[in-house]
Amino acid sequence: MEEIKVFAPATVANVACGYDVMGFAMKDIGDTMTIRKIATKKWVIENGRGCEGLPVSPKENVIGVAVEALMKAYGKSIDFGFHFYTTKNIKPGSGMGSSASSASAAVFGVNQLLGKPFKKKELVKFAMEGERAASGAAHADNVAPCLLGGFTLIRSYEPLDIIELQYPDMLYASVVHPQIEIKTSDSKKILKKDIPIKDAITQWGNVGGLISGLAKPDYDLIGRSLQDVVAEPIRSKLIPYFKDAKKAALNEGALGASISGSGPSIFALSFSRKIAEGIAIAFNNVYASNGIMANVYISQVNAQGTQIIS
Amino acid sequence: MEEIKVFAPATVANVACGYDVMGFAMKDIGDTMTIRKIATKKWVIENGRGCEGLPVSPKENVIGVAVEALMKAYGKSIDFGFHFYTTKNIKPGSGMGSSASSASAAVFGVNQLLGKPFKKKELVKFAMEGERAASGAAHADNVAPCLLGGFTLIRSYEPLDIIELQYPDMLYASVVHPQIEIKTSDSKKILKKDIPIKDAITQWGNVGGLISGLAKPDYDLIGRSLQDVVAEPIRSKLIPYFKDAKKAALNEGALGASISGSGPSIFALSFSRKIAEGIAIAFNNVYASNGIMANVYISQVNAQGTQIIS
Repeated sequence: MEEIKVFAPATVANVACGYDVMGFAMKDIGDTMTIRKIATKKWVIENGRGCEGLPVSPKENVIGVAVEALMKAYGKSIDFGFHFYTTKNIKPGSGMGSSASSASAAVFGVNQLLGKPFKKKELVKFAMEGERAASGAAHADNVAPCLLGGFTLIRSYEPLDIIELQYPDMLYASVVHPQIEIKTSDSKKILKKDIPIKDAITQWGNVGGLISGLAKPDYDLIGRSLQDVVAEPIRSKLIPYFKDAKKAALNEGALGASISGSGPSIFALSFSRKIAEGIAIAFNNVYASNGIMANVYISQVNAQGTQIIS
Repeated sequence: MEEIKVFAPATVANVACGYDVMGFAMKDIGDTMTIRKIATKKWVIENGRGCEGLPVSPKENVIGVAVEALMKAYGKSIDFGFHFYTTKNIKPGSGMGSSASSASAAVFGVNQLLGKPFKKKELVKFAMEGERAASGAAHADNVAPCLLGGFTLIRSYEPLDIIELQYPDMLYASVVHPQIEIKTSDSKKILKKDIPIKDAITQWGNVGGLISGLAKPDYDLIGRSLQDVVAEPIRSKLIPYFKDAKKAALNEGALGASISGSGPSIFALSFSRKIAEGIAIAFNNVYASNGIMANVYISQVNAQGTQIIS
């Protein structure tokens, strides 16, 4: 195999209560990347549509950093290089896992071209190095669902233990991306280093409720559990009209709504496409009526994760 | 109905990572209580075997406090009283939910004698008032599994939201109660009011892993998730030979082990009765060889909770 084209989905990290440990993948939105072997032993990164402004030096781009981590673990020397051509539908800085998508697509594609020396789950730790380059922390709550699909839980970082969670087929995400930028690194800085044990207990009660609700499935329980008392109260201050958008989603019948990753995107979950569409329209209205450009997306949960297109 | 005899099981609260929110009920160990209507409009508490030293004044005994809460919600005046006769197999101060068992048996029995005005789940909040009297906090992590059986999650205290979790049939608990006493109120005091967010994230990763592991079921995941970085490191200092006992359980094949409630009892989970028996013997050896009297128990998880015997 000389060339491969892959799709890596947008992801929603945290999922309200699951700060730093939970995430899910979207089905109908993501980036595509064409990776091909080249004769020169170099990694050449070419920016396609949607990649404007991203660095093309492999040492500065998440693609290069993630593939570097993979090659180091691979250990064998190869007499060829790789060319990466990315088309991005996930805007960098949106909070929808744009860097995770690039890193995941790159390591997934390279692994295919090398004859699959690694299992998909093993690729997560390489893609995490891309996240480290992008945000300063090697978090896995975007790359795990991006690669594996579905809902994932990072039970532990040391050692890395990724759990593929049970979830119902009928589950839709509506996401709005207001056109303002928040850097993940800034958004992490404003969180407190210590939290009241009372809040921590509330949070793990909700994590437990959400995972139980997804497994049963119990939509009402999913909805009651989509509460974040740790990150949302602080981070939402950086997102204009967050409260209005959340309220609008709940009015439309959302099970719950919160910040996607570190924002500024906001997600809502619902159990029907019709409700998801109503939420997307309501999301859009909140920002349009306040003169802020916003993109909205509707998608089922993606069961496949990163996959081969051709 | 004039008289009823009920069984209320021993319970293991917290279940390692689920501090203040999780608990499960044991099958083969618990208290029995005979509740009968009496002509005088009073509540008479009589201590049977195992109740030595417990107060008999209804205002001081968890039975009286819990039944008082139930009657207040019931609202109607009745022209009779109740006599409570308890036989305790769960030692007070053991960390196996002794006060929860008394409170649960009492409200369950009274509810039956009143013609079941309340659903079983509604009884939890009355039994919680008994817990408030016993330990200073109206916690539900013992009374919920004691009344409902199985594994329960307190997703939220305000409003109270109790989730009956999925769990596998084949799951055994081994519990050792070393004969030293720790008061729940003391054991709560030594915990910190604020915790590092890093530890909180570890804890909710494990809560998620445990609930997912129980639902799938995935015994290995259950085992990896039975970790407590919040309460166990502090509370275990009050329990002599805790580390030895935990290590002994893991050596015998336990999925995991931790403190039962606020201690001093220690529990371990396993997937076969044979392993559970090996753990119980190992638990006993640790304490016997150090000159501390200890009781050991083996039980499957109790699916029924508090129930009518006759």
